[in-house]
Amino acid sequence: MKIAILGYGTIGSGVYKIIQQYKTKCIHDLEVVKVFDQPNKKNKLEIITSDIDDILGDSTIECVVETMGGIHPAYEFISAALANGKHVVTANKAVVAAYIKEFVTLANKHNVRFLFEATTGGGIPWLAGLNKAKRVDSINQFYGIFNGTSNYILDAMTKHKKTFDEVLRKTQVLGYAEADPSADIDGYDVQNKIVISSAVAFDSIVNMDDFLCYGIRNIKKEDIEYFEHKHYVIKYIGEAIKTQDTYEAFVMANAFDYDQVEANIGLNFNIVTLYGRSIDSLKFYGQGAGRLPTANAIVQDIVDIETLQTAYDFNLDVSLVYQAMQKNSYVLRYKDKIENNDIDYSNKFEDYYYNHTKEITADQLRSITNDLQLDQLFVVKIANYKG
Amino acid sequence: MKIAILGYGTIGSGVYKIIQQYKTKCIHDLEVVKVFDQPNKKNKLEIITSDIDDILGDSTIECVVETMGGIHPAYEFISAALANGKHVVTANKAVVAAYIKEFVTLANKHNVRFLFEATTGGGIPWLAGLNKAKRVDSINQFYGIFNGTSNYILDAMTKHKKTFDEVLRKTQVLGYAEADPSADIDGYDVQNKIVISSAVAFDSIVNMDDFLCYGIRNIKKEDIEYFEHKHYVIKYIGEAIKTQDTYEAFVMANAFDYDQVEANIGLNFNIVTLYGRSIDSLKFYGQGAGRLPTANAIVQDIVDIETLQTAYDFNLDVSLVYQAMQKNSYVLRYKDKIENNDIDYSNKFEDYYYNHTKEITADQLRSITNDLQLDQLFVVKIANYKG
Repeated sequence: MKIAILGYGTIGSGVYKIIQQYKTKCIHDLEVVKVFDQPNKKNKLEIITSDIDDILGDSTIECVVETMGGIHPAYEFISAALANGKHVVTANKAVVAAYIKEFVTLANKHNVRFLFEATTGGGIPWLAGLNKAKRVDSINQFYGIFNGTSNYILDAMTKHKKTFDEVLRKTQVLGYAEADPSADIDGYDVQNKIVISSAVAFDSIVNMDDFLCYGIRNIKKEDIEYFEHKHYVIKYIGEAIKTQDTYEAFVMANAFDYDQVEANIGLNFNIVTLYGRSIDSLKFYGQGAGRLPTANAIVQDIVDIETLQTAYDFNLDVSLVYQAMQKNSYVLRYKDKIENNDIDYSNKFEDYYYNHTKEITADQLRSITNDLQLDQLFVVKIANYKG
Repeated sequence: MKIAILGYGTIGSGVYKIIQQYKTKCIHDLEVVKVFDQPNKKNKLEIITSDIDDILGDSTIECVVETMGGIHPAYEFISAALANGKHVVTANKAVVAAYIKEFVTLANKHNVRFLFEATTGGGIPWLAGLNKAKRVDSINQFYGIFNGTSNYILDAMTKHKKTFDEVLRKTQVLGYAEADPSADIDGYDVQNKIVISSAVAFDSIVNMDDFLCYGIRNIKKEDIEYFEHKHYVIKYIGEAIKTQDTYEAFVMANAFDYDQVEANIGLNFNIVTLYGRSIDSLKFYGQGAGRLPTANAIVQDIVDIETLQTAYDFNLDVSLVYQAMQKNSYVLRYKDKIENNDIDYSNKFEDYYYNHTKEITADQLRSITNDLQLDQLFVVKIANYKG
């Protein structure tokens, strides 16, 4: 199968490397014939073109791999490729979360495949796992650590007693976090992944404006220590729950007992859990980002196309209304400046700095935090997952 | 597709329940038309038969699900079903580990499928995950908690300070452990799973007589406490490593740092990890046994057949020679009777009761433990996995 790659950055060049260098039976018949990017000195691939029509207009190219990121022109290129009868594989979570229904409809119309495993959980076969579980069970809940950069930050703060800013700068130097880290630490990245996972799990497009999203930008060293004294570890979690015709979702810090699996996921790893009626809980763990793991997920999608694996059977026609039903306890730090000596670690969760709510709904929590409107507010859910 | 189930015990009745009651799109066209079992009063299924030829001779039955366990007559029934052009799905790890090459060859010859996801890791899509990873990476190592009963025992001993015998009796009452618990606590169950996983991962039949297998029958409450003082948690691990034309494998207790993922896997859950060149480490976690999770794995295999998913592409023709190459440190308790007061927890691993080896090979370990020949010997590997 002849393939074109759009974008020759970290992920695009990783896909090229795997297809060129790994000679497994499944990859054997794949051939990258064009790469869309700006030619530059570093990058002397002969197959590079800066004219997208060299690819869209070439009827021998059966599969387009989009790794450019961002909404435009990715949206236009994906749409045109599908409309021209080419399979599309993408790692671009923003454009998929925004246009998944349109892309799936277009792919169905032109009898081609639209696959996006690499958007969510990097190299982890998470969307494939969800889709497979759904064949037998109906899936009503999933949750997990969906963002490697924020996990790296929280893990380093916990293990090495560093401040948020110290660790953030280090992740930027390492290339994990962008110069503008907002997507990772304010939750937009996880919001996109919740929308994409919900599409596969629930066959429904949920609206990320509906559900609660609290970032971890305000977390302090003292917060980590405070929860540590109570045997909790802070992790940044996305989750969604479906009940009949309604759903709710959360993106926020969660406090896990130190001996729960999620509490012990280190570095930039991801772990994601689904629940099914007969399967109970299934967890998938691995590299949630990075050049080769993400490229691996893309190549897996290409191999699915090449080996004629059955297409995802979803129409995205289930309509779910947002409704806050789950009751949870939350801990809010509502003082801006912490004098560490004043924290009373012996109190369960009532303190000059910290307030532990009763079991309340997301709407009640939203109302409380809206009233507080503190710039430095930090909100944590007490994790209470089944398994 | 018309299906017959052989054996109507825990697993067989679970498969029947899922197919009858779960009405997902994928299950919709499945129909159980015959069950092979002894009729009894409790069990008044009209479709039950005690004559296997009612099933093997019925050309409308396309798929046979074997859930009887044991080698005979499972071996004969599976062989006859495949030879009669029927797909076979089984949960029977003993017969698969012993005859996998013969069954795969027979299935290929008759152009039918032989699937066995439920044999290893219960409801976890582990073999499918291995097979998928192998499409892109070559897989050279896997390890994990493959046995739920022994994990339940170790977890309860660790969390509730119970003795081995107390917990074993409880698992027998709960129905987790058989009256003869040998398969679970002496390692035969995990040996079978290593053979089956190696077939999928390495395309090779390894011989379980080659590799080291130490049970956990001799573990004492004091052992758990001893390792706990050193921040270790004991888990029962199976693993295999391939290097070019050689392999080695281990089934034995491992000591994990308390903040490693494996150390925090509770109850009867399983977790299994594979390594690939581009994917790095992938972990799969879930119910490793139990009625509905195991039945779920069987139904997943049936759905793969029904939806014409591509068959496992393996010939089992890779020949691997056993060779002890990995160097590890081990802790041996070589005194039979422990006076808890005499244990010096402050020593790193040198003690009247415990001996910490240097980095030695499996052959060196085997030689040491053969020389000791203590009935009550307990051997633990210091876990040192990449991730």
